[in-house]
Amino acid sequence: MQKRPRVVVVGAGFGGMQAAQSLANSGAEVLLIDRYNYNSFIPLLYQVAFAQLEPGLIAYPVRTLFRNTPNVRFLMANVQQLNVTQKFIETERDVIPFDYLVLATGSQSRVAGVPGADRTAFPLRSLTDAIALRNQVLQCLEKASHEPDSAKRQQLLTFVIVGGGATGVEVAGALVELLRSLGRRDYRMLRREKAQIVMLQAGDRLLPDLPPTLGAYTGKKLRHIGVDVHLGVKVSQVTPEAVYLQNGQSICTETVVWTAGLEAAVPQSREAVETTTRGKLVTLPTLQLPNFPEIYAIGDVAQVAEADLTGVAPEALQQGVAVARNIKLQLKGRSPKPFTYFNKGRLAIIGCYSGVGYIAGIPLKGFLPWFMWLAVHLVYLPGFRNRLLVFLSWLQAFVLGDRAARAILPSTSQVLSNAASVAQKSAFQQ
Amino acid sequence: MQKRPRVVVVGAGFGGMQAAQSLANSGAEVLLIDRYNYNSFIPLLYQVAFAQLEPGLIAYPVRTLFRNTPNVRFLMANVQQLNVTQKFIETERDVIPFDYLVLATGSQSRVAGVPGADRTAFPLRSLTDAIALRNQVLQCLEKASHEPDSAKRQQLLTFVIVGGGATGVEVAGALVELLRSLGRRDYRMLRREKAQIVMLQAGDRLLPDLPPTLGAYTGKKLRHIGVDVHLGVKVSQVTPEAVYLQNGQSICTETVVWTAGLEAAVPQSREAVETTTRGKLVTLPTLQLPNFPEIYAIGDVAQVAEADLTGVAPEALQQGVAVARNIKLQLKGRSPKPFTYFNKGRLAIIGCYSGVGYIAGIPLKGFLPWFMWLAVHLVYLPGFRNRLLVFLSWLQAFVLGDRAARAILPSTSQVLSNAASVAQKSAFQQ
Repeated sequence: MQKRPRVVVVGAGFGGMQAAQSLANSGAEVLLIDRYNYNSFIPLLYQVAFAQLEPGLIAYPVRTLFRNTPNVRFLMANVQQLNVTQKFIETERDVIPFDYLVLATGSQSRVAGVPGADRTAFPLRSLTDAIALRNQVLQCLEKASHEPDSAKRQQLLTFVIVGGGATGVEVAGALVELLRSLGRRDYRMLRREKAQIVMLQAGDRLLPDLPPTLGAYTGKKLRHIGVDVHLGVKVSQVTPEAVYLQNGQSICTETVVWTAGLEAAVPQSREAVETTTRGKLVTLPTLQLPNFPEIYAIGDVAQVAEADLTGVAPEALQQGVAVARNIKLQLKGRSPKPFTYFNKGRLAIIGCYSGVGYIAGIPLKGFLPWFMWLAVHLVYLPGFRNRLLVFLSWLQAFVLGDRAARAILPSTSQVLSNAASVAQKSAFQQ
Repeated sequence: MQKRPRVVVVGAGFGGMQAAQSLANSGAEVLLIDRYNYNSFIPLLYQVAFAQLEPGLIAYPVRTLFRNTPNVRFLMANVQQLNVTQKFIETERDVIPFDYLVLATGSQSRVAGVPGADRTAFPLRSLTDAIALRNQVLQCLEKASHEPDSAKRQQLLTFVIVGGGATGVEVAGALVELLRSLGRRDYRMLRREKAQIVMLQAGDRLLPDLPPTLGAYTGKKLRHIGVDVHLGVKVSQVTPEAVYLQNGQSICTETVVWTAGLEAAVPQSREAVETTTRGKLVTLPTLQLPNFPEIYAIGDVAQVAEADLTGVAPEALQQGVAVARNIKLQLKGRSPKPFTYFNKGRLAIIGCYSGVGYIAGIPLKGFLPWFMWLAVHLVYLPGFRNRLLVFLSWLQAFVLGDRAARAILPSTSQVLSNAASVAQKSAFQQ
């Protein structure tokens, strides 16, 4: 009996999951590897960070997705080293040979070049990031509610967002919604204190991937709901107490959300592979690495030749389908075909019942793209249970205006005891 | 204007929450303190640990519970020191004077005396504990699914429960359910490998707080569903690789769940207060500390004179009501009254659609007490949203037999890299 070819897929994000699913009936043995045992639904991370959704609702067990596909196996491991000429990869404990390799390891926040940002700013690229940011925001509110010093209180209630792309805009809108909801109900001090949300965008407009009119609308909308939007502003340093700008100004805050730029998350390779300045793997139009026809890269980790891509989920999904098709062609001894992206349009959510969209050349603004954004993401969310529970959570959030997912789970006491050294006197001493 | 008296309630568990709620209209200013910002619904912790429920569904924000009671304020802090004669408490950063104090700080796992148990065994007393145990069990399954060495695989698939009280029994049943569900669907190796669940009970019967016939039924039921129940067995040591018994035997396992005994979690006190061997505060029948008529203790932290209590939630709830009544009497210049417990009966859940109960002198066994246990806990769970989502999760778990809450969240990579040093060779090397 002839040995079945082995396809190793590294990364269980949009691209990797789709590739493994599309390879289900290929006749190959598929091994899907991820460092987590779940697929994170990245577009809804911001809703976890701002207490609309329980983290588990956007985390779908990888094994559950592949219950009925016996040729796909799952391994939870960190891939630490690629060996592209001898065709194997290394994890913490295994050496795994492959016949074909699909790299779908995604991206991570790029904070290089700004002192302090890597230690102090909050990225929003994983579920762990989202939970850490949620805990930070809720702890700031808890501390502010008993802080006697007004300058310190203002610092705790100031939230700075670095970056004015889709994630930055989502974060700003969701923060406004969170503070409004909690201020009305659970933190009475927010009625007299003014929480401040500041957005710092290096470029000259928001949402640079969309037409300028939509960026302008988004800026107007964010200012209208109370966000302090600054364009053409660059961050020079982040400390636990403040963020410093290149123009010499500074903002006192304990919470800096870093959404300004990503870089590819590529495992180390023993041999040289061609990469871009952002660390992306350069691929041929067929998604193959040059000189390594059995190795593919897709999604955020890939820079596809002759393609104009912006790093959104539909691109990774379509690349997952294409890479599976190309491997199947190779298995039959035929040549892979170039990837072509079918752009169905773009949507971005602002919050407070507003969004923007650009579909078939038509710009959309306001309630309709907001509603469409939610509907599209509900449809794409894996798992009936998660879809139902997210839908119910949205009813609660958007109809009742409540924020329920607010338990501060890990190492609460640690953060609080750090704060203790800063505080001088107590609101309770009389 | 006369200053309103201040009642400080420490601990937002069953007793503390009920005390604060019952003091809502007392005319006193109530300050409720907890180190977490949420109330944990302890009876359902085991369902979080075995992937039936998302952690957030049994964590209810304290502030939400007191939205409509303006005289109750909340402070998230660790109470570090009591000063019972001068009547103030100290947190990490505040000194808080009180006129009346209600101590409702609950209990913690008691592992003293067994070497290694405090570092290695998994307690199940907080949401953080439950998440850590869930991660451990799921990681053992992930590791076992790719472990080439059969002895090591058996070690990973052996789960030891120390203690045969209500928590130990719940844990054993839920583990059986989890392994059955995942073996059928997501971990095909569980069909050929035999997972082993071992229960070690020091006493001569299970569920010692209930009549012996019910303990015997529980043991028979647990053995029937595959749990290896040992009575009269004491643990002498726990290591990361095994648990050692006083009779000289040992069991190779990486997972020891510690449910065998609790001790009171009392903040330090500058002055001597009377405690029992388990660290409980001795109180008068009125729940007051002897010699300190303005200081009360309720729930697991209290040893009430002349009362025969076993440490269940209804006792804490009724004590919460009683302590509020007594403080209101004192505010009017009258004498506090003794606490009397109205025992509505006891229920314990085994799992696999079985439970036991003892209500109005009638012992119950099988499906009825199982169903009643779930129904009663659903009714007592705070918050409509949580109740609805828990109900839906139960439908999924008990009707569809699925376990969905399976994302391994914190520090996954750490645990995996620890495992790397143990493993010798790889299932993938060929």
